[in-house]
Amino acid sequence: MKLGVCYYPEHWPETMWKDDAERMRALGLSTVRIGEFAWSRIEPEPGKYDWNWLDRAIDILSAAGLEIILGTPTATPPKWLMDREPSIYCCDEFGRPRKFGSRRHYSFSSQVYRRESQRIVEAMAERYGGNPAITMWQTDNEYGCHDTVESNDNDAQVAFRHWLKQKYGSIDVLNEAWGTVFWSQEYSDFEQIDPPLATVTEAHPAHRLDWRRFSSDQVADYNQMQIDALTPAIGATPVTHNFMGHFNQFDHFPVGAQLSIATWDSYPLGFLEQTWWPRETKLRFMRTGHPDFAGFHHDLYRRMGGGRFGVMEQQPGPVNWAAYNPAPAPGMVKLWTLEAFAHGASLVSYFRWRQAPFAQEQMHAGLNRPDNVPSPVQREIRETSELLARLGPDDADDKSRVALLFDYEADWLFDIQPQGQSFNYARLCFDFYTGLRKLGMDVDFISRNDTYTDYDVIVVPSLPGVSENEVARLRDSGAAVILGPRTGSKTAVLSISEGLAPGPLQAVLPLKAHYVESMHPTHQESGAGFSVRHWLEHIESELEPDFRLDSGQGIVWSAGAFTYISAWPDIGLITAILLRRLEEKSITAIDLGDDLRLRRRNGRVFAFNYGPDDISITKLADTLDMRQIAPKTSTIGTGEVAIFSV
Amino acid sequence: MKLGVCYYPEHWPETMWKDDAERMRALGLSTVRIGEFAWSRIEPEPGKYDWNWLDRAIDILSAAGLEIILGTPTATPPKWLMDREPSIYCCDEFGRPRKFGSRRHYSFSSQVYRRESQRIVEAMAERYGGNPAITMWQTDNEYGCHDTVESNDNDAQVAFRHWLKQKYGSIDVLNEAWGTVFWSQEYSDFEQIDPPLATVTEAHPAHRLDWRRFSSDQVADYNQMQIDALTPAIGATPVTHNFMGHFNQFDHFPVGAQLSIATWDSYPLGFLEQTWWPRETKLRFMRTGHPDFAGFHHDLYRRMGGGRFGVMEQQPGPVNWAAYNPAPAPGMVKLWTLEAFAHGASLVSYFRWRQAPFAQEQMHAGLNRPDNVPSPVQREIRETSELLARLGPDDADDKSRVALLFDYEADWLFDIQPQGQSFNYARLCFDFYTGLRKLGMDVDFISRNDTYTDYDVIVVPSLPGVSENEVARLRDSGAAVILGPRTGSKTAVLSISEGLAPGPLQAVLPLKAHYVESMHPTHQESGAGFSVRHWLEHIESELEPDFRLDSGQGIVWSAGAFTYISAWPDIGLITAILLRRLEEKSITAIDLGDDLRLRRRNGRVFAFNYGPDDISITKLADTLDMRQIAPKTSTIGTGEVAIFSV
Amino acid sequence: MKLGVCYYPEHWPETMWKDDAERMRALGLSTVRIGEFAWSRIEPEPGKYDWNWLDRAIDILSAAGLEIILGTPTATPPKWLMDREPSIYCCDEFGRPRKFGSRRHYSFSSQVYRRESQRIVEAMAERYGGNPAITMWQTDNEYGCHDTVESNDNDAQVAFRHWLKQKYGSIDVLNEAWGTVFWSQEYSDFEQIDPPLATVTEAHPAHRLDWRRFSSDQVADYNQMQIDALTPAIGATPVTHNFMGHFNQFDHFPVGAQLSIATWDSYPLGFLEQTWWPRETKLRFMRTGHPDFAGFHHDLYRRMGGGRFGVMEQQPGPVNWAAYNPAPAPGMVKLWTLEAFAHGASLVSYFRWRQAPFAQEQMHAGLNRPDNVPSPVQREIRETSELLARLGPDDADDKSRVALLFDYEADWLFDIQPQGQSFNYARLCFDFYTGLRKLGMDVDFISRNDTYTDYDVIVVPSLPGVSENEVARLRDSGAAVILGPRTGSKTAVLSISEGLAPGPLQAVLPLKAHYVESMHPTHQESGAGFSVRHWLEHIESELEPDFRLDSGQGIVWSAGAFTYISAWPDIGLITAILLRRLEEKSITAIDLGDDLRLRRRNGRVFAFNYGPDDISITKLADTLDMRQIAPKTSTIGTGEVAIFSV
Repeated sequence: MKLGVCYYPEHWPETMWKDDAERMRALGLSTVRIGEFAWSRIEPEPGKYDWNWLDRAIDILSAAGLEIILGTPTATPPKWLMDREPSIYCCDEFGRPRKFGSRRHYSFSSQVYRRESQRIVEAMAERYGGNPAITMWQTDNEYGCHDTVESNDNDAQVAFRHWLKQKYGSIDVLNEAWGTVFWSQEYSDFEQIDPPLATVTEAHPAHRLDWRRFSSDQVADYNQMQIDALTPAIGATPVTHNFMGHFNQFDHFPVGAQLSIATWDSYPLGFLEQTWWPRETKLRFMRTGHPDFAGFHHDLYRRMGGGRFGVMEQQPGPVNWAAYNPAPAPGMVKLWTLEAFAHGASLVSYFRWRQAPFAQEQMHAGLNRPDNVPSPVQREIRETSELLARLGPDDADDKSRVALLFDYEADWLFDIQPQGQSFNYARLCFDFYTGLRKLGMDVDFISRNDTYTDYDVIVVPSLPGVSENEVARLRDSGAAVILGPRTGSKTAVLSISEGLAPGPLQAVLPLKAHYVESMHPTHQESGAGFSVRHWLEHIESELEPDFRLDSGQGIVWSAGAFTYISAWPDIGLITAILLRRLEEKSITAIDLGDDLRLRRRNGRVFAFNYGPDDISITKLADTLDMRQIAPKTSTIGTGEVAIFSV
Repeated sequence: MKLGVCYYPEHWPETMWKDDAERMRALGLSTVRIGEFAWSRIEPEPGKYDWNWLDRAIDILSAAGLEIILGTPTATPPKWLMDREPSIYCCDEFGRPRKFGSRRHYSFSSQVYRRESQRIVEAMAERYGGNPAITMWQTDNEYGCHDTVESNDNDAQVAFRHWLKQKYGSIDVLNEAWGTVFWSQEYSDFEQIDPPLATVTEAHPAHRLDWRRFSSDQVADYNQMQIDALTPAIGATPVTHNFMGHFNQFDHFPVGAQLSIATWDSYPLGFLEQTWWPRETKLRFMRTGHPDFAGFHHDLYRRMGGGRFGVMEQQPGPVNWAAYNPAPAPGMVKLWTLEAFAHGASLVSYFRWRQAPFAQEQMHAGLNRPDNVPSPVQREIRETSELLARLGPDDADDKSRVALLFDYEADWLFDIQPQGQSFNYARLCFDFYTGLRKLGMDVDFISRNDTYTDYDVIVVPSLPGVSENEVARLRDSGAAVILGPRTGSKTAVLSISEGLAPGPLQAVLPLKAHYVESMHPTHQESGAGFSVRHWLEHIESELEPDFRLDSGQGIVWSAGAFTYISAWPDIGLITAILLRRLEEKSITAIDLGDDLRLRRRNGRVFAFNYGPDDISITKLADTLDMRQIAPKTSTIGTGEVAIFSV
Repeated sequence: MKLGVCYYPEHWPETMWKDDAERMRALGLSTVRIGEFAWSRIEPEPGKYDWNWLDRAIDILSAAGLEIILGTPTATPPKWLMDREPSIYCCDEFGRPRKFGSRRHYSFSSQVYRRESQRIVEAMAERYGGNPAITMWQTDNEYGCHDTVESNDNDAQVAFRHWLKQKYGSIDVLNEAWGTVFWSQEYSDFEQIDPPLATVTEAHPAHRLDWRRFSSDQVADYNQMQIDALTPAIGATPVTHNFMGHFNQFDHFPVGAQLSIATWDSYPLGFLEQTWWPRETKLRFMRTGHPDFAGFHHDLYRRMGGGRFGVMEQQPGPVNWAAYNPAPAPGMVKLWTLEAFAHGASLVSYFRWRQAPFAQEQMHAGLNRPDNVPSPVQREIRETSELLARLGPDDADDKSRVALLFDYEADWLFDIQPQGQSFNYARLCFDFYTGLRKLGMDVDFISRNDTYTDYDVIVVPSLPGVSENEVARLRDSGAAVILGPRTGSKTAVLSISEGLAPGPLQAVLPLKAHYVESMHPTHQESGAGFSVRHWLEHIESELEPDFRLDSGQGIVWSAGAFTYISAWPDIGLITAILLRRLEEKSITAIDLGDDLRLRRRNGRVFAFNYGPDDISITKLADTLDMRQIAPKTSTIGTGEVAIFSV
């Protein structure tokens, strides 16, 4: 695995570049990402390119032995372009432009912006496509950040109507599919259809779902345009994009499929603060991040890159953008880096080389302080670099025996129609992931279009629009399949499944959710050693339930390889269900508790302690038949990593 | 009392209609409401009516023996109309149209929409006015839902200026009445006056109050227009409108006066979740609704219909629109239906026949599941239907001995000028109602324009603008009159009463509120066995108070038949005050606690248990000299109804 | 010290004026403020002035022996002016006018409004400038109230670009200073720059800071225009403006420098409710106000007036504008008045003479009830008036030995870049002030431009942009200097200080904050008898810390006269630090606890009891060697004032 760093030569005097480059190498870094916000320097005036500074930066970095990842600068179109072409602006739900003065102020649907983006990307590719120093390209930066996937601009409205026409062919088909007869929402022409925004009360769910799909498709189209613009000049040089954490506003699978390798930006502390956990969890992990945050995304984005993934931006200290920004505990940057390695990453690139003393991110730590003194984190990076060297090559392509099926449409669908406002797909998936990881499982993420045959256990937190074909493929996979609530509850146009939930699954699971309840999160329904919250389905079935609530109501149901959970389970219930299925498949599980996590790679097992206390590993090593390589102690200290061989 | 159902034939294949109709009858239902959202099917293109489908639906339903309630479809003007006439749109405070794509997107002030509404209503009346199958008409649907009473569109601005001119005659009179000299808000012409919206800080209270009155008047005018459009063709067929729960944004009394019978839409669980109760109350009653929610509205809308009222939409299972949507506990739909009966309803119509699998309300339960299997609730409805048949005719017009005076302007006034942000008129009324119901009282609602002579006790939670004439009528009624805080505190233009609060009441109650305090809800001032919160008036009076705070400050004051409460009392204080007055009037009261409620009708007493525990009724029956008819047990189970004769 | 009142003759029949005036005098009042909202009466039609009523009002008030403070009426331009000149409107972040119908609906940048304001002010000055009854003028009213300092109107945009051009000269200088290379935010022309509003995500901090400075400058320019318009006609008559509490949206120092005397509007209960204190503190002081609220502002505005200050509006009972509005406890209006006196005020003017029964402020108490009966508070005012007479002349100009350096830019800077959302400059200053006052200190406020040589101890809660010159002046002052977190952390364009925080302070304090953490307020880091929250800096230094956390981390650092606190200290730590420095300077301190406060003036010491319990003063008097003058008791009752001589 390579270590790298993000760098902005345009922010610093040219006189510093050489020293920077040499110190990067000396620290053990081998890649450097540049360029992704530099449009105003590359093209200071319309049509007048200034490549000189960038040529020199590339030369200097390359001369020091660094491989360069070059970003296209489209996340920040310059002011002169916005003034000439205001149709580029991303617009809010009322159609108001979201103004210049930060970033991502463009609409993915803007025809002008697609043309302008193509122009600048082609120009860059032409200039640097043949340069062997550039070993990877990055398209744009963090698509969708700051809620920019959707835009209610004129081009988007036109494109949406076109998209609908392509999809449905005739307006009658659309009316029938959506069910616009409800509330006299019928249309007689595609031209009558606006984005489902700023309506009196909630807009039609099918209308909203298609708007989300359309908006997502615009992102994929936009990214493909960049790849097409790059390809003629760059040939086989890999292309990536840096995705984000906890971000489901567009479907990452098609974008991932366009890339040579997927990368993501990992900020464990910032995301902890702004996510759903209760305050006590946030305080417990305030300087470490949640034990499953990074793992979840490593496993997700490993799938996006078809097995090839990395971290393009790794938090190296306090950031600037969360509500509160504590510092990582000592050792955490090393731990996070090794965790990426253990999950199969081929790159961890720290963000950023040196803290910029000006502008929006001036309080975001770097590997060097603004006064150019190395941050203490460099010591951890050096240790990590040396350890990685000792561990040797890492080209094994380990497959997990357990998969989690993740689906972006499911997220949009529940966002559009949560039924109970605490129903959140991402959180549900995370709970299942935590259950798996607590039992020591390695996890592969899969999409609904993937092959299901490689796994012993497939966990489907929820797949509302599961199709007959998908059910058949799950059945034929040979895996034990654990399905969460609301699976099979909806059709592709966000209607209720014919024959009720779980829809096509009834072919393998003879049960029907004849009605459902959503409940305030402070209400829970209890069973023996577990509880359920948020969501409760009432099931009609001849099956004997695997688990019941104290009230007698069944909530877990199995038929052959399939298990269905008709409520939102707590971690206790998730692990209880998993243990039964894992045992069937002779997979050894062990309860790691809340703080410890394991990950296998290439004949080694890495153990990560996210908790505040030392953890004894004697029993763990015995149970899993592991021999400790490093460190040579019987406990793993807080914030530490232990490595075993198996 | 008839049972009925709401039905949307346009949502279902015509082949299902006959079976639906027959099963409705078989279930014991005798009415079916249709049509109220069907404009796009009735008039698919401008001026081209398609009556055929509706003719057939009416024929089939009628042939099965069902009486039809036909709704005018004006709550959902179709897209072709909105595109041709965008001046119809309801606008937000900034004058932005609230877009098409849900419902109620029209302004009550739109001149074009009044014309278009009249046209479609006349066309329907012409088509079906003579059809004996139509036994009732409903105007529009849930006026004001989704905050649509107010609209800042151009027609509304013009009409508001006209309304002000009609009311005040000259601009000088308006300036004087409002007190626009304050902050130089004086006008020289009615044309200068805008709606009191989007101002720098709070707009002038008199300006705001008149805007609320104007907006309310527009609703009544609009409804009258529909009735005028219906009448020539439908003759004496009753006309209703379906009002909502906890909705005070327009004055229901004048609209009620235009109707033959008032109906309302009863969703006890949805409203529990979105109302002011603390979480613990919401959790206690999450599957039953608050014990006083339905009763409050039955009594309110019985008055709106001049004694004739019904429930047009009765929640039959989980709904889709509250923040959380649990299912009614077993028995509750029966209980709610019988409660409506006990309160004098002549109709309970369930919403809806079959859960629609598509569009905004697809998660709203019906009497049939989306797969057309009967929901379990049908059993409760069948039992209820049989029980009602056994109970026999129900034409008694029982009068209560206790009345609660309810006033919409009071709600607007306190909304405009709460003085303490927790002061909420609807909640204050509800607390008084709960006090009355906890003591086993039947309650009639009355308006400030009603005759006061029929009652022994009149409770006035607050009537800020009480007039001399009203005081005289209260005095002459012979009733004990209990008045809540802020009564008499304001004039008709939202100024402070001359001579201070309680204004004209000082003729009968020699006291003056010389200053007032509002307090955070977590602060309470205590007395012996009670406390007050939110609001505290400091009274100047020679009277000896009936009740004092521990501090010595008097808070309840009586003179002759009048009692004034100079604070927001808790339920304990409310019942203590009531008990004194009820005893005077020889009305037997009994403390029913939090969960049990009684209602008398036609020589019978119905008892409803909303709580989680069985309740013994032996002592209750003895005290009230009641003989239990059904069931024959000494306790009322949770969610059950007992019936007594007296 | 004079007592006065605010009065609106235009609100009342002329027949009441004489009686009002005589009763003011009889109550012991000697000033009356009028006119500041009367534009629509002074100029009812464009260009047609009506001075008659105002002439008569002035004559009558003056004849009764009252000195008149005359306000310019520019806070409320009349409707006819707004209709003719809509460019006057203050606009929101989206450029939408904030509508007529309350007050302050003008933009400080409006060219038309500057012209119109000048016209009306000159006309008033011409009319009354030579009238000896007018002893003071007030410009406008509460500049900035209701968030009106910033306005995104066209004139403001033009003026902002001009302001930037004046400041930076060339666009390259601006680009370099701000660091617009970040995210390609570079400009090629000043005309390209918009206000930093409605951007996709946070706008550039330097851009935002300059916008705040520009907006603040517009206020000062506007006020200077009024003073220039007044001066030719009024000569040496003093001019004031009434500032507000807890309001930092513009820099008060330059406006203060334009005035003869500073005044402020003191509403201790309203501000308690809407400020940062936790609910328990708000409940404890709900009827007294926070013990340091009035003192803080007296000391702040004494500096604004160069030693001359007063209270232009003093809360006399419940107000109408806070979320909850309790009444002052008995005695508090007297206490607040004497506290103003003790802090050096020359005027306390109650707001208002009589509660207006109409319009927005009808629930705001006055010295008379709306029915013209005197409020009970008149007794307290009469007592106060008599006591002040007994205390005799008050022309001493006492200097404190302790100063607190307050800076508005610091507030804006942390508002723009809090880094942790609970970091609030005003609150930090208040905590330091409370620490000082709890130890019995009198406090002078100083600005960063003031002379520092008069003090023994200077407290700088935070001064992010401290300059080398300021550091030198602090060093040369001879005072002990206590500096709070983030001091020296930023440059003048909101970049990080060269050499890191505390920037230029490193010349005297050899330490460096090499990284910082912000933390959720529920997390605290503890030391021996104290804790820190919100903010924690990690310091690199050879110094031995004065105080450490339990973790060993140093958080208080001293070198010579300088002490730096590298965290947000609690009151316990603040007082511990202060005690060391006060002892060095031989200043006697005593812990007064949470409720008692002292203030020295002219050889006397005033003690104020804000708490619910009597407080023994025997030990206090002994320690501070004070002889009690009044009252003659060994305790100070709740809400009472004791006076001592020293």
